[in-house]
Amino acid sequence: MVSDASDVAPVVQSTADDIAEMRIRGAATIADAAAEALATQAELSDASSPAAFRSQMHAAAKTVYETRPTAVSLPNALRYVLREMDGDTVDELRSSTIAGAEAFRRNLERAQTTLGEIGANRLRDGDVVMTHCHSTDALACIEAALEAGKHIEAIVRETRPRNQGHITARQLREWGVPVTLIVDNAARRYLNDADHVLVGADSIAADGSVINKIGTSGLAVNARERGVPVMVAAQTIKLHPDTLTGHTVAIETRDETEVLTPSERNEITPHESDDELTVENPAFDVTPPRHVDAIVTERGQFPPESIVTLMRELFGETTRDPWET
Amino acid sequence: MVSDASDVAPVVQSTADDIAEMRIRGAATIADAAAEALATQAELSDASSPAAFRSQMHAAAKTVYETRPTAVSLPNALRYVLREMDGDTVDELRSSTIAGAEAFRRNLERAQTTLGEIGANRLRDGDVVMTHCHSTDALACIEAALEAGKHIEAIVRETRPRNQGHITARQLREWGVPVTLIVDNAARRYLNDADHVLVGADSIAADGSVINKIGTSGLAVNARERGVPVMVAAQTIKLHPDTLTGHTVAIETRDETEVLTPSERNEITPHESDDELTVENPAFDVTPPRHVDAIVTERGQFPPESIVTLMRELFGETTRDPWET
Amino acid sequence: MVSDASDVAPVVQSTADDIAEMRIRGAATIADAAAEALATQAELSDASSPAAFRSQMHAAAKTVYETRPTAVSLPNALRYVLREMDGDTVDELRSSTIAGAEAFRRNLERAQTTLGEIGANRLRDGDVVMTHCHSTDALACIEAALEAGKHIEAIVRETRPRNQGHITARQLREWGVPVTLIVDNAARRYLNDADHVLVGADSIAADGSVINKIGTSGLAVNARERGVPVMVAAQTIKLHPDTLTGHTVAIETRDETEVLTPSERNEITPHESDDELTVENPAFDVTPPRHVDAIVTERGQFPPESIVTLMRELFGETTRDPWET
Amino acid sequence: MVSDASDVAPVVQSTADDIAEMRIRGAATIADAAAEALATQAELSDASSPAAFRSQMHAAAKTVYETRPTAVSLPNALRYVLREMDGDTVDELRSSTIAGAEAFRRNLERAQTTLGEIGANRLRDGDVVMTHCHSTDALACIEAALEAGKHIEAIVRETRPRNQGHITARQLREWGVPVTLIVDNAARRYLNDADHVLVGADSIAADGSVINKIGTSGLAVNARERGVPVMVAAQTIKLHPDTLTGHTVAIETRDETEVLTPSERNEITPHESDDELTVENPAFDVTPPRHVDAIVTERGQFPPESIVTLMRELFGETTRDPWET
Amino acid sequence: MVSDASDVAPVVQSTADDIAEMRIRGAATIADAAAEALATQAELSDASSPAAFRSQMHAAAKTVYETRPTAVSLPNALRYVLREMDGDTVDELRSSTIAGAEAFRRNLERAQTTLGEIGANRLRDGDVVMTHCHSTDALACIEAALEAGKHIEAIVRETRPRNQGHITARQLREWGVPVTLIVDNAARRYLNDADHVLVGADSIAADGSVINKIGTSGLAVNARERGVPVMVAAQTIKLHPDTLTGHTVAIETRDETEVLTPSERNEITPHESDDELTVENPAFDVTPPRHVDAIVTERGQFPPESIVTLMRELFGETTRDPWET
Amino acid sequence: MVSDASDVAPVVQSTADDIAEMRIRGAATIADAAAEALATQAELSDASSPAAFRSQMHAAAKTVYETRPTAVSLPNALRYVLREMDGDTVDELRSSTIAGAEAFRRNLERAQTTLGEIGANRLRDGDVVMTHCHSTDALACIEAALEAGKHIEAIVRETRPRNQGHITARQLREWGVPVTLIVDNAARRYLNDADHVLVGADSIAADGSVINKIGTSGLAVNARERGVPVMVAAQTIKLHPDTLTGHTVAIETRDETEVLTPSERNEITPHESDDELTVENPAFDVTPPRHVDAIVTERGQFPPESIVTLMRELFGETTRDPWET
Repeated sequence: MVSDASDVAPVVQSTADDIAEMRIRGAATIADAAAEALATQAELSDASSPAAFRSQMHAAAKTVYETRPTAVSLPNALRYVLREMDGDTVDELRSSTIAGAEAFRRNLERAQTTLGEIGANRLRDGDVVMTHCHSTDALACIEAALEAGKHIEAIVRETRPRNQGHITARQLREWGVPVTLIVDNAARRYLNDADHVLVGADSIAADGSVINKIGTSGLAVNARERGVPVMVAAQTIKLHPDTLTGHTVAIETRDETEVLTPSERNEITPHESDDELTVENPAFDVTPPRHVDAIVTERGQFPPESIVTLMRELFGETTRDPWET
Repeated sequence: MVSDASDVAPVVQSTADDIAEMRIRGAATIADAAAEALATQAELSDASSPAAFRSQMHAAAKTVYETRPTAVSLPNALRYVLREMDGDTVDELRSSTIAGAEAFRRNLERAQTTLGEIGANRLRDGDVVMTHCHSTDALACIEAALEAGKHIEAIVRETRPRNQGHITARQLREWGVPVTLIVDNAARRYLNDADHVLVGADSIAADGSVINKIGTSGLAVNARERGVPVMVAAQTIKLHPDTLTGHTVAIETRDETEVLTPSERNEITPHESDDELTVENPAFDVTPPRHVDAIVTERGQFPPESIVTLMRELFGETTRDPWET
Repeated sequence: MVSDASDVAPVVQSTADDIAEMRIRGAATIADAAAEALATQAELSDASSPAAFRSQMHAAAKTVYETRPTAVSLPNALRYVLREMDGDTVDELRSSTIAGAEAFRRNLERAQTTLGEIGANRLRDGDVVMTHCHSTDALACIEAALEAGKHIEAIVRETRPRNQGHITARQLREWGVPVTLIVDNAARRYLNDADHVLVGADSIAADGSVINKIGTSGLAVNARERGVPVMVAAQTIKLHPDTLTGHTVAIETRDETEVLTPSERNEITPHESDDELTVENPAFDVTPPRHVDAIVTERGQFPPESIVTLMRELFGETTRDPWET
Repeated sequence: MVSDASDVAPVVQSTADDIAEMRIRGAATIADAAAEALATQAELSDASSPAAFRSQMHAAAKTVYETRPTAVSLPNALRYVLREMDGDTVDELRSSTIAGAEAFRRNLERAQTTLGEIGANRLRDGDVVMTHCHSTDALACIEAALEAGKHIEAIVRETRPRNQGHITARQLREWGVPVTLIVDNAARRYLNDADHVLVGADSIAADGSVINKIGTSGLAVNARERGVPVMVAAQTIKLHPDTLTGHTVAIETRDETEVLTPSERNEITPHESDDELTVENPAFDVTPPRHVDAIVTERGQFPPESIVTLMRELFGETTRDPWET
Repeated sequence: MVSDASDVAPVVQSTADDIAEMRIRGAATIADAAAEALATQAELSDASSPAAFRSQMHAAAKTVYETRPTAVSLPNALRYVLREMDGDTVDELRSSTIAGAEAFRRNLERAQTTLGEIGANRLRDGDVVMTHCHSTDALACIEAALEAGKHIEAIVRETRPRNQGHITARQLREWGVPVTLIVDNAARRYLNDADHVLVGADSIAADGSVINKIGTSGLAVNARERGVPVMVAAQTIKLHPDTLTGHTVAIETRDETEVLTPSERNEITPHESDDELTVENPAFDVTPPRHVDAIVTERGQFPPESIVTLMRELFGETTRDPWET
Repeated sequence: MVSDASDVAPVVQSTADDIAEMRIRGAATIADAAAEALATQAELSDASSPAAFRSQMHAAAKTVYETRPTAVSLPNALRYVLREMDGDTVDELRSSTIAGAEAFRRNLERAQTTLGEIGANRLRDGDVVMTHCHSTDALACIEAALEAGKHIEAIVRETRPRNQGHITARQLREWGVPVTLIVDNAARRYLNDADHVLVGADSIAADGSVINKIGTSGLAVNARERGVPVMVAAQTIKLHPDTLTGHTVAIETRDETEVLTPSERNEITPHESDDELTVENPAFDVTPPRHVDAIVTERGQFPPESIVTLMRELFGETTRDPWET
């Protein structure tokens, strides 16, 4: 049985195009669109046999997947929906698939709020939280704590090179949270004043490693050394399915001008174009599970070493994606 | 016996003024001027008795000391010279004091070169060194290694907020050293590629703690965790005599605009002047001795836990400075 | 649909009263009574529809739950039974609920014996066990080891302030176990002679943290530092369901007279009634999972980081208790 | 109901004899033969009732199990097949049992290849792997990485006393992998050059401990201290079911002549037969989970603390083996 | 040359008796009396030759020493004075010995005050100090901090079995220091609120180990794990000279009734006199130097690893005491 | 002033030849011969001026030194004697030099015995000692403990590749010490039974690092993790003077046939001469001071971080050897 892209509904192809060209972006938005596309495909399918239906669904999933294979939420959405596809007739397959997609989208809509409530339970009245970078999942925990009437203060690392700490600081000030802004280098000194380190995640691997903005891993080592617990806030769409099979997560390298403006470069090497002055600018780093105390998701909080269980439960265990032949 | 500032020679007073008004600055330059001032005072002294001579010398030391009591090299220079003052007659006291001042100045002149040669011995051909901030003592080690024909590469942390890593990078590129520049946050990731962490010191305490540019202590914790040795290059004038008596070292806090420009602040709190957005900008932090492998001085290399012995040997053990009554 | 306390059977209300007024006490006894109450409610129910039945059951659960919301075994019993309630008719719901309650009570009756057999398997002939406080779960492990013919010796910490170590010592001596009693302060010295640290738990959190008698966490840190494995014996009714959602466990503070008798207080502050002499007397502390080697339950032994999986399997994953509206 | 060995088919008895007398050996071969034996027993069964069928199957399992109760793969195979035995009639029981046995054998056949592909995903092009002892599971990871076109180099510990490192070295050289052979004592020095420690396992306990060739645990402690990740390659048949119930794993002690030839002993104690010169030669040691980064199985990679979940999923949670009465 | 006890002056013998019979007690009082005795012996000596004088002095030292060879301050006082004995004639020997004794006694008188001032420099305004047991050296640090106008609060461990924490609490309350009293078991929980752990020492070994009241070492391990610095206050007479030569320090074991009253024992073993219920009650334990941050003496503060240098400087390096033949 | 080898006495040249050609070997024997050579040179000198005498002595020292510049005891002996050379006339210089040489040789003769007595003080009756390689300094500690009537047992690592553990075992059995011989890989398992790790040293660096037989550093990391103290026995002639100035210690690499016999190599690569099968066989490794508890010398025991003080005291602090121009 061969999947054939010609079976893929035009509206699915259009969603795929929107993802590919970044008109649809953001982990949650992409996941939502992908699930919706599968539901649409199921609805429109003219498959004459269960086998043909399955084949069409796999083709649709593959089409969507290949637009941005490194977006971690995309295979999660597709895997979740396809796992729900079940039945002996085309009609049963169709309705189970649509129901699966709806369940996924419904969960997704509530996920950040629920996660925030769970994370807020870890924060006590009067606690001081140190943040790194900008994460709406992490902020949702603070917001829920504030709504529960707790007084929270924040120490915000600026997070060079792109200073996303400024965005975090702005949001927290809008909520009335007292903010102390520091350079990244000052973190260890201020860990003495912090009750929690609270960060988000770009993605989370099956061994409990947390891939997050560069600087997270060094902060976590220091937090362990100072006895400050490290809390990672991440919706389950951030769980990286490929890592179940040992794949490492590729780390994006960004442009050198984020670190060194051309005029700054010129000051360092005034007389020459110099290719032995390299600027390395990786976007993320990897924090091993032994430096993380808890991963907070919308499904509860987990020790990092147990996250693999949730990952297998939600997205299945396979050595390859279901749309691979 | 009372010391009397009126006994202090005008030229000593003039040196004191130059230090106070920052016309003389830099740890080594200040130390040199202070020793020279004591020699001059000894030469010009009209004291009629050994007691009067000693009293004049203490008055001169006090005058110089009080110009900048937080400059760590100043009391060291004064203590060293006064310890050499010895004899039963005014003439003997005078000549021993002058000889002591000359010895101190002679040592000082050679110190950085000697330190560099000693530190270079720790670097093997082909080694990669990670630096933090800018330190001429640290760079002297690399320079001596290059002069010995070794190939050295460098990973340079930019060192927010003032980016002194750029100065380090420029100097290293002038010497032909291949340089990789990174943001401070990327350090843990690149520790895997480094054979040494090499930093200078603002000052060193009697318990072996290293006071250095903010970010050093967090880097050292990570280096220990990754098994990369940490080497501190510091002339003995950086040893902080007050810490022998348990004093803690005051850490300078610098202006918030180094961290956040007014327009960046405005973006974070657009609608209000907001005093709950604090910016903390300490210049230095404290690295405990258990995270440092070696302190390299012009008198040899020392485990940090042993530096107190050198400190007592050079500058004496007192519960107060000798010019205090 | 609204639950209405007026639907709750009088006998259930009576059980609730007994729990509230401590006539029913002890984690296992409470859990047993709660499950029995739900079975009784199911039996006596006159509900006319499945919905009404469910509503009555939730009302009964709520009534029982609210008697002592901090008793960890109470919600576990209620959740377990309600999860088994399943069916399309009132009769099916009734019989499944009763069966669930019976299963729970049957498991409970065997739990400590089974746990003891499992824990005993970790103890080898001739081993020396260091205990803290008094725990029948922990003692069950030693008892089973003795029954298997192993020679076991014990080092018993007295466990200030209430000296429950004396109860442990008495029980062990009755079984013929050679006992060495020490003050709590002497533990590190005697860890060299111990093959295991064995403690019970007041409750266990979803992140694998163990809440147990004050002094446990400090002992565990020292045991890790000395290379002695720490084994926690705890039936699954001690798994704290609220912690799945990030709630921290409130720690009871007990009366100061357990620590300082009035006459001792008078010796310390003879001349005044003094409110700046505070006595803090928390009953429990929290041992993080990285200092625990194994949690032994009647369902097998688990690394602390995996206990969350068992917790979800047994009591379900919810962001709120099922009887909350 | 009583199992009766007389119900056991002669061909099953014959397999049992082959295992007992080591004609069938090796973890995978034993497991395969055990599953086949149960299938054969099911096929040949003349049981007149479901109860009789179950009784026969348990008797057959017991017969096979008791041949080598310490072979970890044997109970796993038997438990897996018996868990699949399901149905209301003898025919249903027979066919489900046969299907279970076939599934088990099919999985087993593919397991090492799949495990190798998963493990290979952790290895990057150019990585250097340090090995200990000889493990076909570990080698399968390297082989798959080579097949994926990656360049891999190896540092091979000789692994006294039996020097199985030589077998590993020979295999790697046949594949063209550059090999550096070292004595076991040299490992810490060469960890600086290694990107991974990669070992197999004799068996794995429920608390995530890895039982493997003597020397593994000391290597893992050093690898953690140097920041080199430790990867254990082990098929799921290596998961030790008894450890779910706290049993410790017995460690085989081997003959002293592996360590000390008679002539070497004679040199040490020339004049006497000396029973205070003891030679201890344990075959394996135990590496605690906190020193292991990932366990790679054919079912995916797991943090060691989570392996208990997989163990329960595959082989069931029981306090005793199903064939025990 | 033979020392002969008959040369020892009766008044020296009388001091020796007072020490032996505990009429003279306390480390400082004993040291003072020992030095005075040597001065008296020197004064009264009728030696006819330098050799005879030295012999008499050694005999006197031996007589005093042997009264309580485990009192650490006794050999220190004797060694110090004998090291100052210098000269070519009896008169020179006599006057140098007397001067040495006076210098020692003068230093001793000032030592605790000076130590307190040095230790106070480590305490900042507003700091919270956790104490263990009762130590006048440790309290001197707090007193000096209070005199310098700093606000200090204290968390006082009761220090079972003898509850010397009560004495500490009483003293601190007299000085107006807010005190929180806790059981020893609660320490780890309250370390989060402490800025320093501050303890005294019974004696200090050449390897930097601190021998102090039982419970100190376990507290120090926890303080390191929580990042709280540990400060030991100890006059130099506490430095244990025998440890220079590798001797371990014998730890006194105290009476079981301090731990268990006869009636408590009777409750544990009601029916029998039971010699398998042992009570171990060691008075002290040993904290290794890696868990201590600073040792504060009247000669300055030292990393524990450097204290050996001070020990050799003050009391000399010998493989045996000078009065041994 | 120029040193001129023609001034060197023939007998000194002859000693130099004997050292160069290994007729004189062993750290202590070399040191003794070197000191004797300087004494002879001083005796035979016909220098007409103090300057000429000094020049001759430096030339003699240089001649001896250059025979084996990597023998650590050689420069120590030469530096010690030259530091004692003092005076204003040739006669004074001669006699002080000869006296210095005699003192050095006298110390050397007693050193191992004294060291053994000091080290023995660390061993208690009944202790079990784990050894690595063969060291007469380490054995001297055990011998002295036996002579003091203590019962000592030993766990002896065989110490591949040259199995010097067999020599240690033989010596210990001759003394009647019960010996358990293990492969190096079994060390961590048997650390549980050991009270001390006791090793010698090839040399010791100024930062407290211990250079010793390959495998020492990995053993020390494991001993720290298991809480077993590590004791290094080394005479002061093992202190490496070059490391005061940051020089690293070159590690000898030995022949591959110690690890792999030609026939074993042939088995691994049967079909080819294969230069990608490398055998690395370094003789020593470096244990950092934080993994060592005490260094025992004939001058007392020292924390490793303090050894630099002893080194400077004995052999002087110079940035170059005194015989360098």
